[in-house]
Parts: sequence; structure tokens; C-alpha cells
Amino acid sequence: MIGNAWLPDGSRHGIEIRDGRVAALRPPTASEPGVFLMPPLVDGHIHLDKTLLGLPWVPNQAAGNTVADRIEAERKVRAARSVSETETGANLVKQVVASGTLHMRSHVDIDNQLGLKNLQAVLAIRERFRDLVTIQIVAFPQSGVVRSPGTARLLDEAIGQGADLVGGLDPVGIDRDLDGHLDAIFGVAERRGVGIDIHLHDGGDGGIAEMRAIAERTRAAGLAGKVAISHAFALGSVPTETAARTADLLAEAGIAIMSHGPGAATMPPLPLLRAHGVEVFGGSDNIRDAWSPFGNGDMLERAMLIGYRANFRHDHELALAFEMVTEAAARVLGLADYGIRLGGAADFVAVEAETLAEAVAARPRRKWVMKGGRIVARDGVLTPP
Amino acid sequence: MIGNAWLPDGSRHGIEIRDGRVAALRPPTASEPGVFLMPPLVDGHIHLDKTLLGLPWVPNQAAGNTVADRIEAERKVRAARSVSETETGANLVKQVVASGTLHMRSHVDIDNQLGLKNLQAVLAIRERFRDLVTIQIVAFPQSGVVRSPGTARLLDEAIGQGADLVGGLDPVGIDRDLDGHLDAIFGVAERRGVGIDIHLHDGGDGGIAEMRAIAERTRAAGLAGKVAISHAFALGSVPTETAARTADLLAEAGIAIMSHGPGAATMPPLPLLRAHGVEVFGGSDNIRDAWSPFGNGDMLERAMLIGYRANFRHDHELALAFEMVTEAAARVLGLADYGIRLGGAADFVAVEAETLAEAVAARPRRKWVMKGGRIVARDGVLTPP
Repeated sequence: MIGNAWLPDGSRHGIEIRDGRVAALRPPTASEPGVFLMPPLVDGHIHLDKTLLGLPWVPNQAAGNTVADRIEAERKVRAARSVSETETGANLVKQVVASGTLHMRSHVDIDNQLGLKNLQAVLAIRERFRDLVTIQIVAFPQSGVVRSPGTARLLDEAIGQGADLVGGLDPVGIDRDLDGHLDAIFGVAERRGVGIDIHLHDGGDGGIAEMRAIAERTRAAGLAGKVAISHAFALGSVPTETAARTADLLAEAGIAIMSHGPGAATMPPLPLLRAHGVEVFGGSDNIRDAWSPFGNGDMLERAMLIGYRANFRHDHELALAFEMVTEAAARVLGLADYGIRLGGAADFVAVEAETLAEAVAARPRRKWVMKGGRIVARDGVLTPP
Repeated sequence: MIGNAWLPDGSRHGIEIRDGRVAALRPPTASEPGVFLMPPLVDGHIHLDKTLLGLPWVPNQAAGNTVADRIEAERKVRAARSVSETETGANLVKQVVASGTLHMRSHVDIDNQLGLKNLQAVLAIRERFRDLVTIQIVAFPQSGVVRSPGTARLLDEAIGQGADLVGGLDPVGIDRDLDGHLDAIFGVAERRGVGIDIHLHDGGDGGIAEMRAIAERTRAAGLAGKVAISHAFALGSVPTETAARTADLLAEAGIAIMSHGPGAATMPPLPLLRAHGVEVFGGSDNIRDAWSPFGNGDMLERAMLIGYRANFRHDHELALAFEMVTEAAARVLGLADYGIRLGGAADFVAVEAETLAEAVAARPRRKWVMKGGRIVARDGVLTPP
């Protein structure tokens, strides 16, 4: 029983919990101190196999500022790492669960050097933490598909071994072959009956043209609601009318857009996308890895960064940022049992805040995290099972 | 005695403290656990009179997205506030000292409605916390000078009452009178023999033209090293050659540039400015006030935001972000007794980090903050005097 909780919608309740579920919502017990309860945070884009969390500090080694430079630098870091991906990824899972994330979509690097090694690592992490957190896996061709021969078959095999979606990466910017790239990944998706989540950093009109091609193929393959484009920087670097027209195509095709609130790249225009019916959701992206020194997996902080970059200031805007790291991400991940409601799982994150807007702006300490009626973390630290 | 400290430059020492100063640097005592020590954080741009910290959550009320809209909205919030600026400002000082900031430059709103009321509040705060923190005060014409008749005289009076510098605000964007605005504030500066710190949000070529005018007047008035331009968004929205030419003028005139790593506005090109000899420094700007719901005054987090927005990833870039919130800000504020050195004040911030880059990227908890040899905060909470 949680005697006196207030929820993001402003309502106040006592919450009775039985068998890990919300058995009843009662009037609050005013004598108990109130606590602000949020649904679990959802990370729509994380890289569990890339983080270096738990290793001594690794300076960034990219020679230049392009995606290709960073792919190259990561190969060196990967070869030199002294702690396995299974261990660093587990460090990250513990950290994010303690911050209130109970569901995530992790991309996992697959290429013709790595093979399915990182997939094995993340499958092991998923198994180890299955009682704590839902991990959806995207088979991600970090080195490209066309320019890394053999990768298409590996992606297909990855699905067979337990990956949930097939990924993609800048069909033009990296593979320089729009159709070759899309043929490969849509081929896997159709053969295996899975969704797609494509990293698209390519900017400007080129990036927009790639989105149009992805939308067309999504419609043709009947994959509405199962395709996401991550980053989609291009939507923030073209005139508003172009962004609006593209938004209509994305909405019709049932494609969602993931933003992590990039530091320097252009932000997709989130309110415009929503107004045109496009689902937008949030993710951490890189967390202390060969790509970025920043990030910690705290999705409330991520909501703040998304809001900060999107110039959000009003409460309804902060509410959109919050939705991106909770309900919207849950919809994209297809989570059936999500949200605070009668009969739902007793999954909550308790913080000190008066309102939803304050929770996003101030990112208060997580007092405790509850999963299925059990406290799994207190004050940012996992509790023993 | 701090037995085993490592410093931002990577060196390790035992630090002997006597009479509040560093009396000796000795070889470290390896048997003691090591601690990473930073010099105090310096906030080069804060608004102690604007924060609403300690009030119930106040939703943002700006009707639009311009500086003028936000000035208008702040007037309403100000009229409705139930807790005095003296109290909310004190809340903020306590919070930032606990996060390791021991020196700051606070702008204080002055206009013909407010008069010197907010100045009185911040002077009272400065007096109250004089043993903890250095507060430099800028008499800031938040409503403009020309369009708020009587403000020029108030700015002058403010210096007489204890403000340290005169401020300015978008001479063209707000006052629509470049010369009128600059005549007034340079007039006060020359009469009173004080420096200037001008908020300049105006973007594009217009903003650049204003910077050129400010540089010219700074040279003419012999104010090199005493003038700062805060924000300077324009430098990030013009071609690189224009930014470089402007940087040369700023460097020659001895004008420093403050950036808080704005969320949506363009970033001044920090490495370019440094390469051209311009001093760049950091500040919090708005902290939970009528302008922005975000911000918490943590200058390590601010260094992260600056680095994130500037696309910094390498250790030397993170070191520049760190310098902006420590040594560089200290130089701009003219702090005589700053930095970790033999004979210097025993002012330190202790964190868990291996390197300077990690401290910026991860923004670890402040284990303790020392001022003049005394621990003034532990784990983010002030200790009783």
C-alpha cells in the first residue's frame, strides 16, 4: 500500500498493491507524507554494448568529426578494451534501473569483423536482468551493410538468435547505396516479420530524400507502426514546409522518430511532428563510449536535454518531453502492460517533485523504484533481490 | 592536511594547510585513499534576484518566444511572488556553494518600475554570505535603458550603492537605439570607473555590428579587460570568416565572451574565439525563474552543457569547458587569490573522478567543498558554520 501518491496527471491516490499489480486506487491517506509517482522511464535508444562504464577513463580518439571517423575510432577502442561488453553493459543496466528505467531498446553492433559477438553479450545481459528490465534488441549494422559484405546475412542470423528488430545506418552517408541498404534491411524485416529502427544522421535534403524512401518501403511492406527513424537530424535543417510535408509522409507510413536531444546536431521539430501525427520518443544514445564522453542513462535528465534543445519552457512542452521518455517510448516498443492504472503492473518511480514539469526540469533524486510491487532500487542504488 | 590529492593537471600531492592557506605541497601519502581536487567553481553569469527557488512550482507564462515576451512575463511573475528575492536568492546561494561555486557574478535587474529594490536584496545576500562566497554585482537594465526612462540614472546610483559593474541589454533588439544605449552604459562606466557586462542576444549581422560598436567604444574608453559580452549568439550564426574577423576585434579590444551553452540559440564558436585570443568563460544564466524552468547552478553540469552544445568530445575540449567555469571565469572576475597553488587559499572541491575530463562528463557528486581550510559543504549540503 502506498498511502499518499500523486500522479503525473495531478490526481492523488492511495494505491493498494496485490500480487505485483495495482489492486485498488483509494482516496489518499492524508496523514502519510505524499510522494510523486511516475510510471517507469523507457529508454528508446541505448547502446548497451558500446558503453565503457566500469573501465578507467578512455579519452575520445576520433580523428575527425564525421560518423565515419567515429566508427573508425570505435574499432580501435573495441580492440583495446580490457573489460568485456557483458560486464560494462551490466554496469550500465544497473545504473539505469536504479534511475528508474525499466524498459529499453538497445542497438547492438553487428558487422563482418565483430560478427554476433556483441549480440551474445547483450543476450546474456538480457537474460541476467530479465526480472528487472525489458530489453528489446536491434541488430544494428554499425559499419554499414553494403560496405561491410556479409553483414546482411549476419543481421538475419541475429534475428534468429533473439534480436527483435533489424537496424540500419545512413544508407547514403555510410553505404552510399540507398537501395542496396534498404533492400537488405527491409528484406530481413519482411523475411523475419520484425520491425526496423534506422539511425539516420544524414542531414539536409539528402536526409529528407532517404526518409521519403524509407516511408515508401514501409508502406509497401505493410510495416506501419513497426518502423522508427532514430536521430532524423535532417528534419531540423530544412525549411518548415519541407519538414511538415515529410512529417505527413512519416505519419501516413506509421514511422516514429527518436531524438536524444543532440548536443550540436539539429533537433527534429518535435511539436510540428506531433501536430502532424508522428510519434516522437526519446533515448539516451551514447553513454560514456567511443562516440561520446557524456551521458549517464538517466531518462529524466534526457527529457530535460530534449526540452532544453527544443527550447521547451512551458509546462505542456515539458510534458511532451516527459511523454517521450515514458508513454510514447512504451508505445513504440509495443509494451502491453505499461502505465499507472488499476490492474496494471505495480511499476513506479518515486521522486520529490510537485509537478510533472518540475520533475523534468529539476530531475530530482529517485527516492525508490518499484517493479512488480517490489522495491528494486533506493536513492540510486539497486537493492538486493 | 589532505594526504593524497590529485589535481586537474594530473599531479599528486599531500597538501598541508595552515591558517586557511596551502602551506606546503608534499609527496602524497599513498596509504590514504586518493581524492580528486578541483579549484572552486566560478559562475560568471547568474541572476540571484530572478530565481524562484523555494517557491511552489511556477509555470512559465511567456506569451511568445522573444526576449521582449519574456521580459513582460517576468513582470507578472515578479508582481505575484509570495517569497522575497532575498530569500529565494539565499536559497540559490546555499545550493550553488554546496555544489562547489565560491565566486560568482550576479546580474541584478534595475528598471524604472523596480528601482533599486532587487539591488538591495542582492546586497543583503552578499553581506549575509560574505564568508562563504564572493558575489560581484552587475547593475543590469533588464527593461532596456532608452525605452525605460530614468534607468540610466538608476544604474549610476546602483554603482554608488555597491554594484561592481554596469550591465547592458541588446541595444538594438530591445532599445532600438544602439548609440543611445551605449552612450548611457559607457557613460556610467567611465564616470564610475567600473567595467561592463552586456547581454547580447541579437543574432546575425545585426548582432555582429553591435559587437563591433562595443569593441570600438571599449578601445576608446580604455576599458580593455573590463568588458564582457554575455551570450553573443550572433557569433554562432554568421559565416566562420565573419566570426573570425569579429573575434580579432574583440581580442584587440580586450572583450571577454560568456556562454552558458544555450539550449536552442546558436553557440559562439569557442575554440575559434580562443584561437583568436578572446577570453571565453561560463555562467549558469537562468535558474528556475520566469525565463527558464531549467538550471540548478551546478557549474560542473554547466561545463558539460557547454561542451555538449559545442560538440566537445576530446579531453582537451572538455578541459576548455572546465577552464571556462574555473580559471577563465576567475580571470574575467579579476579574482586575485584564485587557484590551487603554494601560498594560495585552501579552497577546494573534492569529487570522485579519475581525470578532469571525467569530472566534466560525469559531473560527480561533490564529496566536500573547502573554503579557507574549512569544510563548508559535504555531499551537496552546507555544513553549519
